[in-house]
Amino acid sequence: MQLYGYWRSSASYRVRIALHIKDIDFDYRAVHLVKDGGEQKSAAYAKLNPAQLVPTLVDGDLVLNQSLAIIEYLDSLAGPLLVPQDPKQAAIVRMLAHDMASDLQPITNLRVLQYVTGTLDAGDAGRQAWIAHWVARAFAAFEVRLKQYSGRYCVGDNVTLADICLVPQVYNAKRFDVDFTPYPTLMQVYENLQALEAFQKAAPERQADAV
Amino acid sequence: MQLYGYWRSSASYRVRIALHIKDIDFDYRAVHLVKDGGEQKSAAYAKLNPAQLVPTLVDGDLVLNQSLAIIEYLDSLAGPLLVPQDPKQAAIVRMLAHDMASDLQPITNLRVLQYVTGTLDAGDAGRQAWIAHWVARAFAAFEVRLKQYSGRYCVGDNVTLADICLVPQVYNAKRFDVDFTPYPTLMQVYENLQALEAFQKAAPERQADAV
Repeated sequence: MQLYGYWRSSASYRVRIALHIKDIDFDYRAVHLVKDGGEQKSAAYAKLNPAQLVPTLVDGDLVLNQSLAIIEYLDSLAGPLLVPQDPKQAAIVRMLAHDMASDLQPITNLRVLQYVTGTLDAGDAGRQAWIAHWVARAFAAFEVRLKQYSGRYCVGDNVTLADICLVPQVYNAKRFDVDFTPYPTLMQVYENLQALEAFQKAAPERQADAV
Repeated sequence: MQLYGYWRSSASYRVRIALHIKDIDFDYRAVHLVKDGGEQKSAAYAKLNPAQLVPTLVDGDLVLNQSLAIIEYLDSLAGPLLVPQDPKQAAIVRMLAHDMASDLQPITNLRVLQYVTGTLDAGDAGRQAWIAHWVARAFAAFEVRLKQYSGRYCVGDNVTLADICLVPQVYNAKRFDVDFTPYPTLMQVYENLQALEAFQKAAPERQADAV
């Protein structure tokens, strides 16, 4: 398998975690999202992924974008399962995963921040306020849900897709000096996850393209 | 089951389509996202869904937010399947679903538009440009993917989760006068879906809370 990704991309980070949890070998192909206006906009990459976003996973003739679709596919290939088989438990895991991957990440990713600071001319202060606003809303709600569902990890004591979506968002929030005091449960789960080897191997700083 | 939703919410619209496809009875509970500053911010609703977003599905003691998690749960209860059982086909369906549900909808939903026009003071023209920018990027990529995967619908000739995610985004784009000329495949699939009774029953204008 080949994973096209970027060290700081949350969605690439998620797929790396899943591949390491499942101990699946893969070639990591760095796509630099900033250099030369963004390598993801090159003709070669756009042919692979017309949305010009990362990650893209290539497995033989199957070319997949969308990190959550990729991870559910990996779940069909090798254990341990990241989405439980029980439908109600699966629903809770997917719901928490989407709280991070759909309600927070897309609004605060690089291309949106570039539009806010560039086209809308909001400046660095405007960017900071934008991130603080959306992170606070998402994390406050997540803290409430974790009080209901968490054990050692987001849903009980097994690592799931929800954990894989949480960690990259905390990593991002740390870059922007978010105050984590209101989210003690979330931060405890995050610390528990950071102790796991798969999460450590997938960390942005550990990738070949890290600056 | 009770579905808390709003007639114009894309995510509520998705769940309505799925419930009608599966012919599952449900009580529709309208949550007005604009009136009185937004009923989703009421204490009663926030208790049900701390993210203060719609939809929320209640099935006995199971309380689910996140439309895609809800629809995958519904898939476990009753046919026809909206995510195929074959892992590769499932991955393609989920990938296309996320192209709409993760890469487009979260950036162009009501709360983000309110922030862009309000806090960032971009005005109506800024809002229009924002929507046009993100819709064009998402639809152009989706058009390319549909040329590879579509038949009568997004993926072959069976209705899937991808179709359920596409239709509400076209509905939204129509509200904002998007030019659909560059997306003939997408629009043909959309027209094919609009002919189906489940999609007609779920349409925003057909809901009790439509204005």
